[in-house]
Amino acid sequence: MNRIKPRTLSGFMELLPADQMKMEAFMETLQHTYALYGFTPLDTPVIESAEVLLAKGGGETEKQIYRFQKGDSDLALRFDLTVPLAKYVALNYAKLSFPFRRYQIGKVYRGERAQRGRFREFYQADIDIIGDGALDILNEAEIPSIIYRTFHALGLSKFVIRVNNRRILNGFYAMLGLSAQSGEIMRTVDKLDKIGAEKVRALLMEDCGVSPADADEILRFIAIGGGSAAVIAALEGYRGRNETFDRGLDELKAVTAYLPEFGVPEENFAVDLTIARGLDYYTGTVYETTLTEHPEIGSVCSGGRYDDLAGYYTDRALPGVGISIGLTRLFYVLQEQGMLSNAIVTAPADVLVIPMTTDLALAVRTATTLRAADIRAQLYTEQKKFRARMTYADRMGFPFVILIGEDEIAREKVTLKDMRSGEQIAVSPQMAAAAVQRALEERKGGAVIQE
Amino acid sequence: MNRIKPRTLSGFMELLPADQMKMEAFMETLQHTYALYGFTPLDTPVIESAEVLLAKGGGETEKQIYRFQKGDSDLALRFDLTVPLAKYVALNYAKLSFPFRRYQIGKVYRGERAQRGRFREFYQADIDIIGDGALDILNEAEIPSIIYRTFHALGLSKFVIRVNNRRILNGFYAMLGLSAQSGEIMRTVDKLDKIGAEKVRALLMEDCGVSPADADEILRFIAIGGGSAAVIAALEGYRGRNETFDRGLDELKAVTAYLPEFGVPEENFAVDLTIARGLDYYTGTVYETTLTEHPEIGSVCSGGRYDDLAGYYTDRALPGVGISIGLTRLFYVLQEQGMLSNAIVTAPADVLVIPMTTDLALAVRTATTLRAADIRAQLYTEQKKFRARMTYADRMGFPFVILIGEDEIAREKVTLKDMRSGEQIAVSPQMAAAAVQRALEERKGGAVIQE
Repeated sequence: MNRIKPRTLSGFMELLPADQMKMEAFMETLQHTYALYGFTPLDTPVIESAEVLLAKGGGETEKQIYRFQKGDSDLALRFDLTVPLAKYVALNYAKLSFPFRRYQIGKVYRGERAQRGRFREFYQADIDIIGDGALDILNEAEIPSIIYRTFHALGLSKFVIRVNNRRILNGFYAMLGLSAQSGEIMRTVDKLDKIGAEKVRALLMEDCGVSPADADEILRFIAIGGGSAAVIAALEGYRGRNETFDRGLDELKAVTAYLPEFGVPEENFAVDLTIARGLDYYTGTVYETTLTEHPEIGSVCSGGRYDDLAGYYTDRALPGVGISIGLTRLFYVLQEQGMLSNAIVTAPADVLVIPMTTDLALAVRTATTLRAADIRAQLYTEQKKFRARMTYADRMGFPFVILIGEDEIAREKVTLKDMRSGEQIAVSPQMAAAAVQRALEERKGGAVIQE
Repeated sequence: MNRIKPRTLSGFMELLPADQMKMEAFMETLQHTYALYGFTPLDTPVIESAEVLLAKGGGETEKQIYRFQKGDSDLALRFDLTVPLAKYVALNYAKLSFPFRRYQIGKVYRGERAQRGRFREFYQADIDIIGDGALDILNEAEIPSIIYRTFHALGLSKFVIRVNNRRILNGFYAMLGLSAQSGEIMRTVDKLDKIGAEKVRALLMEDCGVSPADADEILRFIAIGGGSAAVIAALEGYRGRNETFDRGLDELKAVTAYLPEFGVPEENFAVDLTIARGLDYYTGTVYETTLTEHPEIGSVCSGGRYDDLAGYYTDRALPGVGISIGLTRLFYVLQEQGMLSNAIVTAPADVLVIPMTTDLALAVRTATTLRAADIRAQLYTEQKKFRARMTYADRMGFPFVILIGEDEIAREKVTLKDMRSGEQIAVSPQMAAAAVQRALEERKGGAVIQE
């Protein structure tokens, strides 16, 4: 036969079973947390009409898009989950109730230049809350709580949710008479972490046409720090000079007002006037999340408030707030950093049942008993030596093995071996199920990330 | 702004939130059941190199494939989950342990002619067990148990898992000297349900060149019925005339030997000599599953034993057994038949928390308390009249609503309303969480399908 060399395209993540189990644990944690906050799962096609997908106009994205003809149709693969959401809401407006809260964890496609850690197919995990005409500020206030609970559930404690408000920045630049350049200034200031204050100051003057005095003023402003209360107090000093600024400050205060009631610890939250998010799309609160000990990773969960979700499809005002996690990249980075827990069970089952004779009745009955007790059980009946069977059990990391030989069949008992301690007991299948259940209950609760 | 009409391509399923919740319940049931049998989840790219994906040669499939260029690359979207599995196993052979048991629930793409109930993007839910060189027959014997538990967990009881063995058919046709035509004969006999015995007889003679006497013999053979034991007893009468037949009969006996131990009720299982599965790929046991009261749907879960998973990638012998559910089509048909349960909660949360004053502290604290107790809670703070808020709660189907007005705040209590009974109680947030938890526990267990 003419053989083809099997390969997976570069830029496409394909995990080995143990890593895939960790990825599944990761995704389940996200799904579970999002559901706790009343988000409904959504699934949209990977393929859309190119006209629909590119309605907004693409810029950088358009070059990266996977676009092709099939018959007479001009098709494209989705490059984010926001455009499909906009389409969905505009299309189903009359059938939805608002606010519409949805989460979507799905693959998106961008034909980026292949390089290490860059993916062409990757999962995004998005949540959005869409209002019909208006959306209460409390929705924005709830987002840090969702981010906190998500990363906490994943196993992290050393992270900071950084929050700002675009109106505060726009209002402040308006005070300086720099409204025309405000977008450009924000993008420059956004580089502060990477290039430092001196270079930002130079760029502000060279690229944004800001005077030396204003550049200093801007750097002074964005350097305001010292905890949320202190930042807000400092911002109050600017009140009354610009309406947009004042509204942004009120929104920021509303966003921080209920943090204790939302269960967000102070150390995991910061008002940070340097963050702006690049996109003009955002109009109010903006969010970034950084790992305290891994600032080099950048933001692992970002988003913000926008006024116009679907203007390119509908004349209805659909304001919203949303955040997104670049799941595939985050998983890859955590893996590289050795931050994925080795404590979670990655075996395909909790128990491997190994019959040692040709009479399989007790072995099958035992597996059935375990499954009825909601325990994952695999039967191993391949014609291999005992040693090869135990190597299989070891290599796959089964927490328990059940051995069934002639003795066991004669006594209607099975030998249950705890692979961690090496302990063995002879018990009935029912008792084995109960013992495994107890042990799994005790051992569970391991998060997928370890700091 | 120049607006584009939002639309979803025909042949692509996109569900409204309540239906999507049912689809999620469907998928979770499959995942959970597959995990109970020791299958590990697998995720492979949607896009593969066209050369790799079409290594086997496509026939009908090749015409339907989504294939396109990106830069210099000739790419294609996967059209099933079997070829990606073959690629994965061949590629990662040295890193996997065998038998390798995996499940994959993923979207596949076929550019079929669009028509009602036909999908171009659809989920397949596959399980396969791959052996290294050999695979014990018990793996084939376990499959009916997996099918039984899956459909039982989905809420069905009226279904039959129909099993046959291709060696029995091949052996039988060899006895008649019809080996050369056996594939064609099987495909003809496969139509028995649809066109009846008379037409099958005619086709056997006209298209397959079978003599009238042999056609009668074939029809007599495939009509053998009366329960597994009776069929096997009748088949024993043919033993000793053909080696392939005898081996097939031994395998069939092994597959039926442990059905009681596997927990498969007799009424959900049948040996059926008419089924063959169209593909030459299958070499031993074959499976089909039909809904007793909806035979028009055809088989909802099919598969079989094959000897050569990945011959077009590797010279290693990789025998296996697998089954597949065409999830999107099955969901669509069940929806059409009104067989999706309306009893399962499709609201995005279990509790809608509605504050009635501008002081939101207690409302936020209550939502946080509920979430800490693993109860899905949504805060509703939009500036709407009370009636509009309750309409939202009704329309979305929240099982519980919590109302918090000035009285509640003064007493640090909340009003918990059971939306089904209309009952209201005033309790602390902790007590509300406990009450909801109890109620949800009592109400749960509803399956996604109702017969």
